[in-house]
Amino acid sequence: MKKISLLGGTGSIGTQTADLVRLHPEHFQIVSMSFGRNIELGLKMIHEFKPSLVSVLTKEDRDKIVHHVPHTTKLVYGEEGVIEVATKQNADIVVNALLGSVGLIPTLEAIKMKKTIAIANKETLVTAGHLVMGLAKAHNVSILPVDSEHSAIFQSLVGQDITKINRLILTASGGSFRDKTREELKGVSVEAALSHPNWSMGAKITIDSATMMNKGLEVIEARWLFDIPYEKIDVILHKESIIHSMVEYDDTSVIAQLGTPDMRVPIQYALTYPKRLKFPQGKILNLWEMGSLHFQKMDFSRYRCLEYAYYAGKKGGTMTTVLNAANEVAVDGFLKGKISFLHIEELIEKALQEHHTINEPDLDTIQQVDIETREFVTSLLS
Amino acid sequence: MKKISLLGGTGSIGTQTADLVRLHPEHFQIVSMSFGRNIELGLKMIHEFKPSLVSVLTKEDRDKIVHHVPHTTKLVYGEEGVIEVATKQNADIVVNALLGSVGLIPTLEAIKMKKTIAIANKETLVTAGHLVMGLAKAHNVSILPVDSEHSAIFQSLVGQDITKINRLILTASGGSFRDKTREELKGVSVEAALSHPNWSMGAKITIDSATMMNKGLEVIEARWLFDIPYEKIDVILHKESIIHSMVEYDDTSVIAQLGTPDMRVPIQYALTYPKRLKFPQGKILNLWEMGSLHFQKMDFSRYRCLEYAYYAGKKGGTMTTVLNAANEVAVDGFLKGKISFLHIEELIEKALQEHHTINEPDLDTIQQVDIETREFVTSLLS
Repeated sequence: MKKISLLGGTGSIGTQTADLVRLHPEHFQIVSMSFGRNIELGLKMIHEFKPSLVSVLTKEDRDKIVHHVPHTTKLVYGEEGVIEVATKQNADIVVNALLGSVGLIPTLEAIKMKKTIAIANKETLVTAGHLVMGLAKAHNVSILPVDSEHSAIFQSLVGQDITKINRLILTASGGSFRDKTREELKGVSVEAALSHPNWSMGAKITIDSATMMNKGLEVIEARWLFDIPYEKIDVILHKESIIHSMVEYDDTSVIAQLGTPDMRVPIQYALTYPKRLKFPQGKILNLWEMGSLHFQKMDFSRYRCLEYAYYAGKKGGTMTTVLNAANEVAVDGFLKGKISFLHIEELIEKALQEHHTINEPDLDTIQQVDIETREFVTSLLS
Repeated sequence: MKKISLLGGTGSIGTQTADLVRLHPEHFQIVSMSFGRNIELGLKMIHEFKPSLVSVLTKEDRDKIVHHVPHTTKLVYGEEGVIEVATKQNADIVVNALLGSVGLIPTLEAIKMKKTIAIANKETLVTAGHLVMGLAKAHNVSILPVDSEHSAIFQSLVGQDITKINRLILTASGGSFRDKTREELKGVSVEAALSHPNWSMGAKITIDSATMMNKGLEVIEARWLFDIPYEKIDVILHKESIIHSMVEYDDTSVIAQLGTPDMRVPIQYALTYPKRLKFPQGKILNLWEMGSLHFQKMDFSRYRCLEYAYYAGKKGGTMTTVLNAANEVAVDGFLKGKISFLHIEELIEKALQEHHTINEPDLDTIQQVDIETREFVTSLLS
């Protein structure tokens, strides 16, 4: 029985993790959970999974629901509450499905408590990869990927000669606007941006997918998860999202993980690694039903956010914190109708230009830069 | 330094193995070798690689070349000679690149001497898989695949949870006649059959590729190499031969090995496993250069030899010996212009119909059935 601390339980990854617990109650149990604005769903999940510890956003939220949860469930709230959930004593694994850089501190605290981390919250690695991986190494803790691309790379590295990696090759579907020219991107709506062709995901990541920033964040995440320099990380366009990603070795062999797009497969792998578990709800991949798979060279002038991500990653230090914070504010601005789609990348570019990178930043520095970047980009929104 | 006994040194796999020894003299050394009719090339290889033991086909061949080889090279001949080469004391690994079922006894003898076997000689497993794998298990000897398809499966199993295999999926290019209807196959020439679109291989295997018997033999080989029932082995048409084969796990994840078609890659992997080695002569796979990969459902009525292989494999016992012997005689008859292309499968079908399978056959029984089948099919040739 694997005991799970689920951070961000009501989001897309959170509910799909819950789905797996529902499918395999003999293998998985949610012992603690956090959730945010979706209180209605959070309450339902408390009654279904009966975690003994739950964290909500605010004291008001706690007071609102405290009489509607079983008396076996302890309710906490706020940043401290999420940390309490992440470090719960009897949990084996923390599934960090939080959105944005709020996932960082709970992750660091969980690592100190020697919890295995299944990380879906890529911003944590993007803003502070050196801190997270350094701490994980010091505490001998595994950081397991949940993203389909990183899970694919991870699965393509298992048991292999990892001293002979030539390239990691991340595949990118191209997102909701992959067939549009830059000219056509000027007037696109929020609704159109939110309609991803292959994956059902949250709003932020769907927009990131359309701008290709999602792939940029994944490149940075891959650099930290697999300790591989940026020069050895490539991105290729593959519109069907069937090959989830690949590893090319020095002998020219490429190992890849493929499958029908379903986030529950990589989530489950993180929960069962190094074993696998039957997933009867999954759709078997029959390549002859697909007929063909397509590949295109990545176009960095078409997808500038990806270029910015490589730039920020190679600069290093606080530059990736700026990239991530600027992107979060800009995407939020787009989702709220304050700026246009192409405006997102312009704001990010401005934030990167404005910043002088600080190397080997500590947590305070990262948080300071994060706040300053958010203020700067917010000032550009109005 | 890995010391190699190379059986079948002048054939396609043999010369490509030699190529790798040439490329990596600090890693590989040929300590013994056998070859057959191509004495001229054999002599050249003796002078280049200076093996201390070499076996030729006949006493006459030995007498012919004995004064043209270095005095440090011992010359032997015939079946006994091949066994001496295969069991050479200081060899670490036997690369069995022999053609046909003559590879069986040297393989068994090498296993008894605890040599690792890199097997390209698929007929050995097809005719006597239960004996070879049983003996290998008893002596704790690894049988490493050299075929690109089996190497791909092997590489897709390394480090994985092999208790959760759902399917092995072998890819088939379709061979030289993949775009022809059965009607068009009636009049095809030997020359046309020998021109394979993706792989440069020997004559027998190129014809087997055109009839799809090659894939059938591979299915049977896979059953033994990986101890997987036929019901869990599938074949898919994939004309580009880029995905060399795949393993589907119970969680719907598929792990695949891909690469530009080059037999030296799987040969080298067998020589370096579990490590890899740089292969600078290899062509890096850039999928965007390919643009697309294509897949089709296997058509068993179009490729009857594959159907016969599944039939023989599931019947078990001596039936696969009959399949293999009938195929060897029929292909030889086609190459010598005695029968037409479609006649190959007719002869195999007749041989299978004629035979009553004997279960758990010993070596003598296998050899007896092999001889009887060859006589029977030869009698149908004239």
